[in-house]
Amino acid sequence: EGGRRAAPYSGIPTLLDAPHRSIGNEQLDINDLDVALFGVPMDLGVTNRNGARFGPRALRSIERVGPYNDALECAPIHEMAVADIGDVPLLSRFDLAQSHADIEAFVAKIIAEGVIPLAVGGDHSISHPILKAVGAKAPVGMIHIDAHCDTGGSYEGEKFHHGGPFRNAVLDGVLDPERTIQIGIRGGAKYIWEFSEMSGMTVIEAADISNIGIDEVIKRARDVIGDGPTYLSFDIDSLDPSFAPGTGTPEVGGLTTREAMALIRGMKGANLVGGDVVEVAPAYDPTTNTAQNGAQMLFEILSLIQFTPFRNSK
Amino acid sequence: EGGRRAAPYSGIPTLLDAPHRSIGNEQLDINDLDVALFGVPMDLGVTNRNGARFGPRALRSIERVGPYNDALECAPIHEMAVADIGDVPLLSRFDLAQSHADIEAFVAKIIAEGVIPLAVGGDHSISHPILKAVGAKAPVGMIHIDAHCDTGGSYEGEKFHHGGPFRNAVLDGVLDPERTIQIGIRGGAKYIWEFSEMSGMTVIEAADISNIGIDEVIKRARDVIGDGPTYLSFDIDSLDPSFAPGTGTPEVGGLTTREAMALIRGMKGANLVGGDVVEVAPAYDPTTNTAQNGAQMLFEILSLIQFTPFRNSK
Amino acid sequence: EGGRRAAPYSGIPTLLDAPHRSIGNEQLDINDLDVALFGVPMDLGVTNRNGARFGPRALRSIERVGPYNDALECAPIHEMAVADIGDVPLLSRFDLAQSHADIEAFVAKIIAEGVIPLAVGGDHSISHPILKAVGAKAPVGMIHIDAHCDTGGSYEGEKFHHGGPFRNAVLDGVLDPERTIQIGIRGGAKYIWEFSEMSGMTVIEAADISNIGIDEVIKRARDVIGDGPTYLSFDIDSLDPSFAPGTGTPEVGGLTTREAMALIRGMKGANLVGGDVVEVAPAYDPTTNTAQNGAQMLFEILSLIQFTPFRNSK
Amino acid sequence: EGGRRAAPYSGIPTLLDAPHRSIGNEQLDINDLDVALFGVPMDLGVTNRNGARFGPRALRSIERVGPYNDALECAPIHEMAVADIGDVPLLSRFDLAQSHADIEAFVAKIIAEGVIPLAVGGDHSISHPILKAVGAKAPVGMIHIDAHCDTGGSYEGEKFHHGGPFRNAVLDGVLDPERTIQIGIRGGAKYIWEFSEMSGMTVIEAADISNIGIDEVIKRARDVIGDGPTYLSFDIDSLDPSFAPGTGTPEVGGLTTREAMALIRGMKGANLVGGDVVEVAPAYDPTTNTAQNGAQMLFEILSLIQFTPFRNSK
Amino acid sequence: EGGRRAAPYSGIPTLLDAPHRSIGNEQLDINDLDVALFGVPMDLGVTNRNGARFGPRALRSIERVGPYNDALECAPIHEMAVADIGDVPLLSRFDLAQSHADIEAFVAKIIAEGVIPLAVGGDHSISHPILKAVGAKAPVGMIHIDAHCDTGGSYEGEKFHHGGPFRNAVLDGVLDPERTIQIGIRGGAKYIWEFSEMSGMTVIEAADISNIGIDEVIKRARDVIGDGPTYLSFDIDSLDPSFAPGTGTPEVGGLTTREAMALIRGMKGANLVGGDVVEVAPAYDPTTNTAQNGAQMLFEILSLIQFTPFRNSK
Amino acid sequence: EGGRRAAPYSGIPTLLDAPHRSIGNEQLDINDLDVALFGVPMDLGVTNRNGARFGPRALRSIERVGPYNDALECAPIHEMAVADIGDVPLLSRFDLAQSHADIEAFVAKIIAEGVIPLAVGGDHSISHPILKAVGAKAPVGMIHIDAHCDTGGSYEGEKFHHGGPFRNAVLDGVLDPERTIQIGIRGGAKYIWEFSEMSGMTVIEAADISNIGIDEVIKRARDVIGDGPTYLSFDIDSLDPSFAPGTGTPEVGGLTTREAMALIRGMKGANLVGGDVVEVAPAYDPTTNTAQNGAQMLFEILSLIQFTPFRNSK
Ligand SMILES: [Mn+2]
Ligand SMILES: [Mn+2]
Ligand SMILES: [Mn+2]
Ligand SMILES: [Mn+2]
Ligand SMILES: [Mn+2]
Ligand SMILES: [Mn+2]
Ligand SMILES: [Mn+2]
Ligand SMILES: [Mn+2]
Ligand SMILES: [Mn+2]
Ligand SMILES: [Mn+2]
Ligand SMILES: [Mn+2]
Ligand SMILES: [Mn+2]
Repeated sequence: EGGRRAAPYSGIPTLLDAPHRSIGNEQLDINDLDVALFGVPMDLGVTNRNGARFGPRALRSIERVGPYNDALECAPIHEMAVADIGDVPLLSRFDLAQSHADIEAFVAKIIAEGVIPLAVGGDHSISHPILKAVGAKAPVGMIHIDAHCDTGGSYEGEKFHHGGPFRNAVLDGVLDPERTIQIGIRGGAKYIWEFSEMSGMTVIEAADISNIGIDEVIKRARDVIGDGPTYLSFDIDSLDPSFAPGTGTPEVGGLTTREAMALIRGMKGANLVGGDVVEVAPAYDPTTNTAQNGAQMLFEILSLIQFTPFRNSK
Repeated sequence: EGGRRAAPYSGIPTLLDAPHRSIGNEQLDINDLDVALFGVPMDLGVTNRNGARFGPRALRSIERVGPYNDALECAPIHEMAVADIGDVPLLSRFDLAQSHADIEAFVAKIIAEGVIPLAVGGDHSISHPILKAVGAKAPVGMIHIDAHCDTGGSYEGEKFHHGGPFRNAVLDGVLDPERTIQIGIRGGAKYIWEFSEMSGMTVIEAADISNIGIDEVIKRARDVIGDGPTYLSFDIDSLDPSFAPGTGTPEVGGLTTREAMALIRGMKGANLVGGDVVEVAPAYDPTTNTAQNGAQMLFEILSLIQFTPFRNSK
Repeated sequence: EGGRRAAPYSGIPTLLDAPHRSIGNEQLDINDLDVALFGVPMDLGVTNRNGARFGPRALRSIERVGPYNDALECAPIHEMAVADIGDVPLLSRFDLAQSHADIEAFVAKIIAEGVIPLAVGGDHSISHPILKAVGAKAPVGMIHIDAHCDTGGSYEGEKFHHGGPFRNAVLDGVLDPERTIQIGIRGGAKYIWEFSEMSGMTVIEAADISNIGIDEVIKRARDVIGDGPTYLSFDIDSLDPSFAPGTGTPEVGGLTTREAMALIRGMKGANLVGGDVVEVAPAYDPTTNTAQNGAQMLFEILSLIQFTPFRNSK
Repeated sequence: EGGRRAAPYSGIPTLLDAPHRSIGNEQLDINDLDVALFGVPMDLGVTNRNGARFGPRALRSIERVGPYNDALECAPIHEMAVADIGDVPLLSRFDLAQSHADIEAFVAKIIAEGVIPLAVGGDHSISHPILKAVGAKAPVGMIHIDAHCDTGGSYEGEKFHHGGPFRNAVLDGVLDPERTIQIGIRGGAKYIWEFSEMSGMTVIEAADISNIGIDEVIKRARDVIGDGPTYLSFDIDSLDPSFAPGTGTPEVGGLTTREAMALIRGMKGANLVGGDVVEVAPAYDPTTNTAQNGAQMLFEILSLIQFTPFRNSK
Repeated sequence: EGGRRAAPYSGIPTLLDAPHRSIGNEQLDINDLDVALFGVPMDLGVTNRNGARFGPRALRSIERVGPYNDALECAPIHEMAVADIGDVPLLSRFDLAQSHADIEAFVAKIIAEGVIPLAVGGDHSISHPILKAVGAKAPVGMIHIDAHCDTGGSYEGEKFHHGGPFRNAVLDGVLDPERTIQIGIRGGAKYIWEFSEMSGMTVIEAADISNIGIDEVIKRARDVIGDGPTYLSFDIDSLDPSFAPGTGTPEVGGLTTREAMALIRGMKGANLVGGDVVEVAPAYDPTTNTAQNGAQMLFEILSLIQFTPFRNSK
Repeated sequence: EGGRRAAPYSGIPTLLDAPHRSIGNEQLDINDLDVALFGVPMDLGVTNRNGARFGPRALRSIERVGPYNDALECAPIHEMAVADIGDVPLLSRFDLAQSHADIEAFVAKIIAEGVIPLAVGGDHSISHPILKAVGAKAPVGMIHIDAHCDTGGSYEGEKFHHGGPFRNAVLDGVLDPERTIQIGIRGGAKYIWEFSEMSGMTVIEAADISNIGIDEVIKRARDVIGDGPTYLSFDIDSLDPSFAPGTGTPEVGGLTTREAMALIRGMKGANLVGGDVVEVAPAYDPTTNTAQNGAQMLFEILSLIQFTPFRNSK
């Protein structure tokens, strides 16, 4: 009679085909979950091509990522309690500051339930309010995979754009720069990221990865984050545009997906307390490759969470 | 201080942004509904370009169709009980006959609950099993908008392909050809549809619509269907390929969307007992126009149902 | 030896291939011009798909619109003094209110030089600050071609989004609703535009145009605007998505380009004091048709200006 | 057991799925044919976007045009002897004049065999050498459907570009301007086509077709061409870009396919001695609609030939 | 006077620009050939995105692959007798089992003529009937380059889908698992391929290739296949989606084309008795890169055949 | 208050956002410049897919390449005097020889002003006239990055096509083959490039680069060019089609962008006297990746010029 599961293109689309959990506006009612997947359809913080507000929709539409992770040997949707709880309810499509407040409040509720938040952006500015919730009690470390350091200062009068979330997080005391590593950095804006090195972050440039080797990059990353609680933020523009054209500030010369997957998988056992995949802009993604790569990286991060000490201590 | 509803690109995508109703495998538990929207992601009956199995996903992803119908003056999602109940559970991705059986069984359950079924294909072969359920007690009339009559016979040994559902439905006694009108017909396959005229269907060719005028077409359609129970089947290839490139058997010289909407709206008050929108194949739809037009026509049909005597007699 | 002009794909791209006029930040130095073409790359006011910030770039890249207008019998770039003066210098990519202030100030300078402003958006919210400059001395009338009335109120706490510029303009006393006609209206948001009719605007719906006929629409428009100073605002989503997929809030059932061009050309001799073409979002425009239609409409409006009494009185 | 023909997507692609006739370099060996379909993959005469050299490939790849013409009631591939004889062997990819010589020589051989030539371009400059062969004995009349008159003079030192074939043909005495009608004309280059009217051609502009009506256009065309030998040249840019984006010099405001098909079909019985479909540039045709419309028009012209007195007198 | 060959975009498109050999339905009449290239436009066995039925057309449309193979130093189309013999005549577009029977019968005829079959799919299920013909006398070994092992069992009641051809081939005794190597494996379905290892196949995962190195992979492959008759099956989804988006079940993290070409070329001298390139679905291939890579791999396999002992013993 | 520069998508598009310098027809008036960026919108020399005439427009439209080069540690637009001086004025769109003459004359004027020319094609045939100007006094060496050697002879009667510029340059005595290295070579045309090795050029094939390593390639390149004046010609088809689909003669198995950038950057300090980036054909570039990669390589070459002894001796 053989196997059977629903066709990958059937049904209501959810992140990683996780079950949908409809949540109320006031209370989340999710304390049975290990991980909450959710979208943040907001891109008011972008500096160039916009459209990452459609990122959550794009990742939900991808078929066939998972359920089994052959490298990490787990099936996270089946072996943990995971749900797609929909999108952050944002009070305004026009107000960046309000959106950030909405995001922080929403993630704080997730954390209050003892659930690990795993977000899909939206632009990278969302990581700041998420970190404010995740690092509220104590600053966290971070694996940050990106073409950009995103530690820039105020720009055109706006401090909370997508080029600065991690400076803001450090200044707010929710991110520990000494326990932060930034991987894949490149491009013409490097001179505005002096905060990264000044604050003590470790920066690995894309151009050096071929020579360093991914195994050594993994080793450095684990050294930086140690055993403490750690956030993993994956900006899809860390990948080369040949893999991820669908993003707002593409930078030539990026990571391959084999490198990126090896890197994330190399974090097995790290103490992850949250994560995100950001900056997928499907209007620039005619093949859907960008969204598929985003969903794959989301799946890899979710898989890591199965092995995190944090979860097991719940 | 001003209005507010969720951003059209946020949340879990559903057909026409209707609420999602998760249903069990055995019982549908939908008898509070007026109309059940559902997908039929099956395209084993196509004869050329395939991909209509992704039609339901494509229509769910469209933003901003409805909620208000300014021509028909109604807001059907709000004024009726409507839900997206997901997709027909199909036992096999490889078996056309089994799929048709699954569809018929599923629609029969919907009807048993006193709910009007409104399907999104998938290829047009699905209309046959739907009609077998809808017309089980007595044959129904039909408004059929399509480039093709779909009354062809067996082809390459297969009787139940997407070019023959309405011959099959007539032969099964579930469709009344005298109460059937086919609108938008054109193209090089006309010679295989002699069944349409032989059985008594009314056929209006696309090339004649400019001269006849939509108002007259509406009048003929209402004459044909009368007051009896009527099904409305909308094949997206009825539209010209400039409006609907994303379909498997496009035919040059089709309807405009203004004509198609006027036509459907002209059916206000008809006794609709079910309907479908079929043949949207998003892989051929780089602008998403085809899916948007499909969603719009679905919305128009749903709006009609608000005025159907059938519903009000429930 | 034959004719010769530069190949249409050569050189620095400008709007309608008009000469580029580089302007300083403080003074515009354009008082020799009849018409100033300029871009407004700002889309913080959109409610759905964004990307209209790339509209000016998209229109500049189009080849071969003009130089001769065979219907209006003029060659406006050659017969008037016209330049592309670049884009409004916007102080912030993140601040809608600031952007509107920047736009108003910039257009006020153009008008102070006695030059007619002709803008390329950007989202439709830009028409409000433009009208504040254009109608500063006395309210103007308006030909408004759009799928949407854009007379909605505050939304999610924001009053100055792209769905409300003309309510705002009326309330600010710069737009005369009695001398305003809105053409091409359709779609599910109609119920939020009651301000249009309450304030005395004339509204012509897309669905009625086939029956009314373009000649009659022109007549009504001329009756509404009379001889007074008049603005012409062209939202590209007035066109059907088959013509203009590249826009943020497409609506099925729109105008054809033949209708739109006939309509604009029918305004020959009207007293135009400014205009705009808005809402071209090239990320959704794989064929470049939307941008080409936008450039064509810009050219038609520019051609009208050659016949405006306002210009001749300069 | 039902019908059967090869799947439309199977086998070696040919024009209109006609049988392929492989021909030698010296002798064509086609005198059993009624009509020879062939490609002319040459676009050195274009003035803007190029790529029409891929036009023949694009039309060959289209599925499902024909075999039956329901309006003209014929099945031309089956009822005449028709073959796709491949492409004109062009001696150089770089030499426009040589290409034109190659084309003329090739078509002369077809005509010497008593076969009607039906060409697929390539750019419109190919019509000049074709007409030199077709009209070698006596000038022919012409139905010319195009956005452009293509009666321009020398340009940048080149007389034989795609904007001038019909001036050249008249000056060479192979085209009778009094028996020539040009339909669909529009756009900013009109002032360079004064030759059309000076030489006695009839010109019908696109903007006037809605008012004139297609039936009247047909009548005028038949009056112009009379009973004499007539060529039909279809430039795909006659269609509006919403139907035919894949072309090098698109012009807003063109014909619909329903108008174009009605127009061609209205020529039933005309004395056709050859024809062409030109200017399909598939690199700009993401939906394949342009190629499909090209193939459809080719099919309509081929269908006309079944009724031409010329053929029957063979 | 310089070189000359037909422009790559001219003429009737064939696989690798090989001569077209038209074959009858009953007898193939090809015994003068060394290699028969043919298409199998069938995709009823796919489990997700369909459209590989257009794979043969897509590969035929590619220009400029070959004629010279600089790595293998041969010009296979010129130095062997090779033809494109068209597509397998399939009796039904709707019947997977019938299609498989048709394929097996067709390939058996090719082999009976002493010709090496080289197929272009279609989905991967076609390799099973091909192997039934190729391995009819004795089981063959196989180089299998794919993201998936394709040794799954019955699925939704269907045993002969594209995820199981090689299990079926082993069970039918036509494929020797001990002489089979599978290269490029990855993704979430690995747990359903236990048959590969249980039956004795060698499996090399994509994630390990960077570390192992292509030279070592080649060595292992040659060890596995030895000197016996060997089939080479290339699933285009073995390549990373950045190279091959146009396929139905893309998997992140695949081979580069430099790796894949090196791998195939490393098989020079192996005893190849047949091969295929499968799973190209052009509707998902907006750049044509997938089809070009498919054609290139087809060319590499064809080049190998020039050095196979099998051919030389003919 | 934070930083501020104009939004990357605003204003008149220029190459690398360099200032636009409008130049007269007779005199260039650029002797204050260090480097002149300019376009050459000409593609009459291509042998397959055309459209590189739109290459300059495509590169101008790219946002956000530069201003800082973090690897070479310079900001060339700010630290040198650089301008986009528009496109070479070409007398004819139809005449390859005339175009080459126009290019040579234009570049000669640039050089006469003591300015380094940096061109954007256009097809690769333009490098021949550029080199005639650059090497007029003495032959130069060359770094040539390309899939093709472009040292072929006359083809179809044309000597000056895009497959032969460097043979022509050597024969004209403007290029020193002993000081020329060609990197990235591959594909089926290799046998027509025997001139490369016969004349003494160094050729490095793409397939060998993984084994040789980029560092060694750089070393060989520097050995070949030495300290003499050197030209750098970058054909975008040197990159693999996954990075650069938008080109006319794509070849599978090319360079990655990380390799290409490392290679160019490795030339720091070389005595560059000119350069070009050619063969970007945007009609085949749906993601704009090809244009972005072209702009990036242009930026890398421009950065190199900041360190060239030639410039400093000015
Ligand atoms: Mn970032
Ligand atoms: Mn980034
Ligand atoms: Mn149908
Ligand atoms: Mn149909
Ligand atoms: Mn608007
Ligand atoms: Mn609008
Ligand atoms: Mn023409
Ligand atoms: Mn034309
Ligand atoms: Mn496979
Ligand atoms: Mn596979
Ligand atoms: Mn080259
Ligand atoms: Mn090249």
